This record gives sequence, C-alpha cells and structure tokens, in this order.
Amino acid sequence: MHMLAFICDSVLGLVSYPPLFKDPSIPADAKKRARDILDGCKGGSVGSYSDSAGIEVIRRHAAEYIQRRDGGIPADWQNIILSAGASGGIKVLMALLRCPIDGKKPGVMIPIPQYPLYSATIAEFDMEQIGYYLDEANKWGLDIAELERSLNEARKTSAPRILVVINPGNPTGQVLSRSNIEDIIKFAQRERLVLFADEVYQDNVYETGSKFHSFKKVMMEMGEPYSKMELCSFMSCSKGYMGECGIRGGYAEIVNLCPDVRTMLLKCISAQLCPTTAGQAVLDCVVNPPQKGEPSYEQFEKEKEAVLESLRERAELVARTFNSIEGFSCNPVQGAMYAFPQIRLPPKALEAAKNEGKPADTFYAFQLLEETGICIVPGSGFGQRPGTYHFRTTILPQPEKLKEMLGLFKSFHEKFLQKYK
Amino acid sequence: MHMLAFICDSVLGLVSYPPLFKDPSIPADAKKRARDILDGCKGGSVGSYSDSAGIEVIRRHAAEYIQRRDGGIPADWQNIILSAGASGGIKVLMALLRCPIDGKKPGVMIPIPQYPLYSATIAEFDMEQIGYYLDEANKWGLDIAELERSLNEARKTSAPRILVVINPGNPTGQVLSRSNIEDIIKFAQRERLVLFADEVYQDNVYETGSKFHSFKKVMMEMGEPYSKMELCSFMSCSKGYMGECGIRGGYAEIVNLCPDVRTMLLKCISAQLCPTTAGQAVLDCVVNPPQKGEPSYEQFEKEKEAVLESLRERAELVARTFNSIEGFSCNPVQGAMYAFPQIRLPPKALEAAKNEGKPADTFYAFQLLEETGICIVPGSGFGQRPGTYHFRTTILPQPEKLKEMLGLFKSFHEKFLQKYK
Repeated sequence: MHMLAFICDSVLGLVSYPPLFKDPSIPADAKKRARDILDGCKGGSVGSYSDSAGIEVIRRHAAEYIQRRDGGIPADWQNIILSAGASGGIKVLMALLRCPIDGKKPGVMIPIPQYPLYSATIAEFDMEQIGYYLDEANKWGLDIAELERSLNEARKTSAPRILVVINPGNPTGQVLSRSNIEDIIKFAQRERLVLFADEVYQDNVYETGSKFHSFKKVMMEMGEPYSKMELCSFMSCSKGYMGECGIRGGYAEIVNLCPDVRTMLLKCISAQLCPTTAGQAVLDCVVNPPQKGEPSYEQFEKEKEAVLESLRERAELVARTFNSIEGFSCNPVQGAMYAFPQIRLPPKALEAAKNEGKPADTFYAFQLLEETGICIVPGSGFGQRPGTYHFRTTILPQPEKLKEMLGLFKSFHEKFLQKYK
Repeated sequence: MHMLAFICDSVLGLVSYPPLFKDPSIPADAKKRARDILDGCKGGSVGSYSDSAGIEVIRRHAAEYIQRRDGGIPADWQNIILSAGASGGIKVLMALLRCPIDGKKPGVMIPIPQYPLYSATIAEFDMEQIGYYLDEANKWGLDIAELERSLNEARKTSAPRILVVINPGNPTGQVLSRSNIEDIIKFAQRERLVLFADEVYQDNVYETGSKFHSFKKVMMEMGEPYSKMELCSFMSCSKGYMGECGIRGGYAEIVNLCPDVRTMLLKCISAQLCPTTAGQAVLDCVVNPPQKGEPSYEQFEKEKEAVLESLRERAELVARTFNSIEGFSCNPVQGAMYAFPQIRLPPKALEAAKNEGKPADTFYAFQLLEETGICIVPGSGFGQRPGTYHFRTTILPQPEKLKEMLGLFKSFHEKFLQKYK
C-alpha cells in the first residue's frame, strides 16, 4: 500500500495474520481496531463470508463517520451497504432501477464530461444515457436550465429515473457550492428523480473557499419535502488521502429508499455472497480513523495532512501551468484528482486528425505520447461539447515528476503549434 | 482464516504489511510467494489497482495449475480472468451472453436442484431459466434424454445459449463420471451451447472410485470438433480444502471464446477496475501451493490432507446416518460439501403444511429448527421434482458436532413421524 501505511497496512496485516498481534511495534489502537473487526467476523476470521451488506461493526463505524462529517445529522448503520469500491455499490443500486417503465427505457442523467463507469453501466443495463453538460464557463458547475433542457429532451423517448452528480468532480475537479447543491436537490425533487451522489472525493478539496457539502446534509437541512427524498451516496477507500485502490473497499448510504426496494436490494446482493472482507477492513480504517489521544493519532494526522497538502500544491501547479500555455484554458482544480483543460487546436491539426480518421483530441494525445511518453486521456472518452477539445490528466505524480512532465508538455505543445500553424 | 493458516494467512499478511518480511518465523517460500506477488503489483503494492483481468504472475500461476491438473494439456494465462470468488466470474460471463436473439430471451440450462446464484443471475439479467432434472435414481448424474427434453421444451419460447454443469455438484454432491462428461460435451456441441463448468469443488472428491475430470481436459482429449468448443470453467478459493470465503478470490478460464466476444469481455470488466488484490493473493496460494522440497510443503500437505480426510469421513457419516432414518434416502456424498437427502413425509404432515400455507419441506425445516436448533435448507430453495421433498445440509461441522446433530435430527424425525402418523 502507498498511503497511510501506518494504519491500513497494519490493520489488514493483523486481521490476515493474527500472530502479528504479538508484534510490540504495532500500536495498541491498530490492534484494537483489528480485534474489533475480527470479533465482528463469523468464527472470528476474515476467511469467513460476512453478511452480504458487510460486517456490522464496520457498517456502524461508517454511520458514525457520516454523522460526524454531517455535523450530527443522524445516519443509520442499517442504511449502509459495504461494497467492492464505490463501483460495486453504484452498479448494484443502478441495477435495481433498470426496469423499463411503461415500455420506456429508464433514463440516467449523468454529467458530460463524466466518469466512464456510468456510461458503461448504463449501456450494460440497457438504460438510457441522458447527458447534461457541465458549465465550463462557470467552473464546471451545474446549470439548472441545462438540467431541464436535457431532461425534457430525454422525456420524449425515455423515463428518467436517476440523477447522478459527481462532487467533487471527475474528470472536471469542481467542488459544488452549497447553493448549487440546493438547486440540484430542488430540481430532483420537482422531477421525482433518485439522487446518486458520487462523493468519493469528499476528502479531496483544495481551493481556498471551497468546501465539501454532502448531498445528505444539505437535503436534511432543507427540511421536507427534500429531507424525504431518495438518495444514494457513494464512498470509497480508493481516493481521498488513502489511495487504497486494489483492496476494493467502499460503501453506499441509502436514504429514504422505499422499503420494498430496500428488501429487493438486500436479496440482490445476497447472490454475490459478500464484499471482500479485506476491503471491508481497510474501509474501517477510513471511517474509523485514529482519534485524538490514541497512539496512532499523530502519525496518522501527519501522513494525512502531508498527502492532502501536497495534492493541494499540485492542483494549483497543474492548473497554473496549463493556463500559461498558449491555446490552453483550465478551470481551477478545486478538488478530486484531475485537471480537464480545454485546448484550442489549429485548423491544420484538425484537418490532419481527420485525415488519420481520429478525433482531434485523440490525435493530439497520440502525438504527445509518442514524442514525450506522457499519457493523457482525450476528452472524447468522458464527453465534451461538440467542437471543443479537452483532455484529462491527473495531479497524482510526485511534485518533481509533475514539474518535469509539465515542462515536457509545454515544449511539445509549442512544437505542435509550430508544426500545424 | 480457518484452513491453511500457514500459507494463505502468511502470504496475505506479508503483502498487506511488508515489515512482516523481517519475521524469521515465516518460512522462506511464503516470503518468496509474497515477494513475487508484490513484484507483479503496480508500484510494488497491493494498494494499487491491478489489471482488470488480474495480476499477470497470478494468472500465469493459475494457468500452470490447470496444466498440471489436466496432465499437461496446455492452458494459456491470457485465458485466465481473476474474479471476486467464482460468482464474480460467472456473472460477468453470463452478462456477455444476455442479449435477446431474434427477439427471444437467451436461455441458460441449469441443473435442478441447482445453486441459487444461477437462478438469481438469470432473473437479474432477464434471461430464460431452463431447468433440467438431475437423475436422483442414478446418483444425481446427468441424463442426456432429460437434457434433450428440457432443451426442446425451452426452444419453443427462448433461444438456449448456455449449459451450466456443476461438478462436483452443489447441492447434490455427485461427481460426474468421465463417460457422462463426454456425453454432455457431445450434447453441447450438437446443440451449439456454450459450456459453463462450475468446478469450484474440484478438490472435494471423497468416494472411492470417484475422480474429478475437468471439462477442459475431457473436451481436449476428445479432439475436434469438441476441442474447439467454447468453454468457461470457474474456480474459487472459498471451497476445496482452503475455505477462504470472505476474501473473495477466484478465476474463470475461458477457452475458445470468439475473439470479438473476448475483447468485449475485457472491456466490460475494465469498468469494475479490478478484482480485490487481497483475493488475488489468496488465490495465488491455491494455484501455486508449496512444492516438494520447499520449507512449507510438509505442513501444507499435512493440513490439506487432514482437512480432506476429515471431510471424507463426514461425507460418509452423513449419508450413512440419513439412510438409517425411516423415510429418508440419501445418495452417496461423492464430492463437494453437501448432502441432499429425499424425505418421504406422511400425508398428515403434508396436510398440516398446506393448512399453514407452507411447502411441506419448509414446514418440516421450521419444525426442525424450532425444536432442535438445526438449520437445513428446504429443497424448494434449489428446485426438485414436483411431489418430492428434500433438504440440503452441509458436511462442514466438526465431527463431534456433526454426530450430535445427526442424533438430534434422528430423534426429532421419529417424534415428527409419531405426531403425523
């Protein structure tokens, strides 16, 4: 593992290999966490199946985490479903709502640009993808008029059911303002849509003045009828300051779900037996982090702050550098782990791309890769307004590598402009 | 973990918590295995995403395992897809074949009785379930005439695509003979069905004279056209002598899959990122067990043999005891982990069940549970011929508990017969 070695690694090590409990170099609170997890496992072992919704003590910790995060607004542990990363939860919840309605495909509203899990899952489940464009001119915020336009358009052929919002945004890096979230909630309530809040980057907020507001908290504080809306919120241990991707830990909090649907959900997940107990154990470290006074607290806080501070610097560096390149414009990376700059390509480059039968952003990305070894993902993989070109790049490389990469990128682009001017 | 503590636990402990490499009490071959896995991980850490099909070195070990198992018949590591238990692989492969054909639902032939993952997945994917009855009078073997009957019946309304065979059987405990497997392969070839061989109990064969034959080996040895058939075989680390259920490790070997379908498969699994690296690591211990001459070999073999020998004794004990109870008849438990006895219930019991609105086997199971605390699963959960009653019970409890359970069961049944005679 790479981050938070201290707590995630030792807890997973302990639950996997119990003789490690005798190791005096592992702090008592890590052992206490591992012991609590093992006590919650059947037969005291992570080798046993857990309940399909996950180990009860970890679900309870997740509920307590949400309650702390949301300033005391209650979270019920029975509304927490543990999953293999956030993806596992998103897929199982989306599957529940996939049945055609009056012969029409159920529609899922997703941002454009979007994270491709959504388009892939919608296609797999034979649902209707309803794209709404994010407002690039407004830091990739959600424009309610655009939501309405895309919904009305989609209603002609499908039965819209779900509104997906990714906040902080992937690939766009925006952090939604509280008032924007309120407007989105009002829209979803008015249009009777189930809200899917993809909040896996909730710890990754960098820009001064930006703050993460959970949809659950805002919805509850708005009172009825909003506080009675159906909401699914997703979280993962793959992002944040943890970056524990491979182990596959995550949860979904399902709020106000119709009891019959909820029963069906529990039945559906039981066919898959259980999410990996190792992923559950690592998620426990995320939702039950060391507290003040515990032996691991200081090292944990130090590691966490160092990771987040460094990401903050890199977020600023990346956006600033891209904005200094001719023909690039990049919104601030307010949160998450990516920049999604727009790039204006000269007409000759567009023509050359056309001749090669490639979208212009893909054409550009291939040349960049071949000449510099830098790999970016063309905007067409995420969706973008027709006639515009973007790419996604991550802020994850270590600062020195990132600086080197940005330097290479800049000189490549100058040569590219020269070539196609 | 409960079984094979020695190898699975230490390898998972090592890859999770690398300082453990310094522990002199862990044998060198366990450390070598953990090191090879970490070297195969991006950034040398199980905290990173792996390829969607799994870590290459583990896929290679799985292919070598299959090749050893099948007496040298080649297995290509690129045909191995690692998954979250066998269930993950079964679902993703079944999803590939779910599209309607000429407006007809694609059909999946499954044994009755069957393991409920299949009926649940078929329902979830809106496919057609085509049940074929196993031949209880012939040790739960597959009768080709019955396969033909069910297929012809199903062809009237659906487009059959897949033939699922569970060998050794769950819940029925049979181990298919080689000639039965040959007949099944010929049937599938004739009828152009994709074979799904659920072979998760391949290590669990108890009865003298019974032997596990993989569908792959038999198919390849039969030569063309059979050796060119599409086959998916599934394996798990949750069964066998390992019993590592919660960690979720498994693989699918896909043989002769049409290249376009294969490309689509790899695209589909990429949306889910990767199977848990912890499950992959534990699967590696299963497909790459200690070899003669390695320090862990003797303890590993001792543990493995002890587990399998004890299961063998329990398999025999359970079938023998059930056959000694009035009104019970139980096929030999040739393999897997379950007995599925038939029970003849007196007419008054059938009537009492009817009055309570319960299937008679469920009625019986509830009374057994309430009076003795013994939990069995009624046959109606797995499917059975109309008018017959069965239940599934496992051979997994430790021998002393099992004997006590069987004693309680017998006296309950005598009282039950008394009550409803």
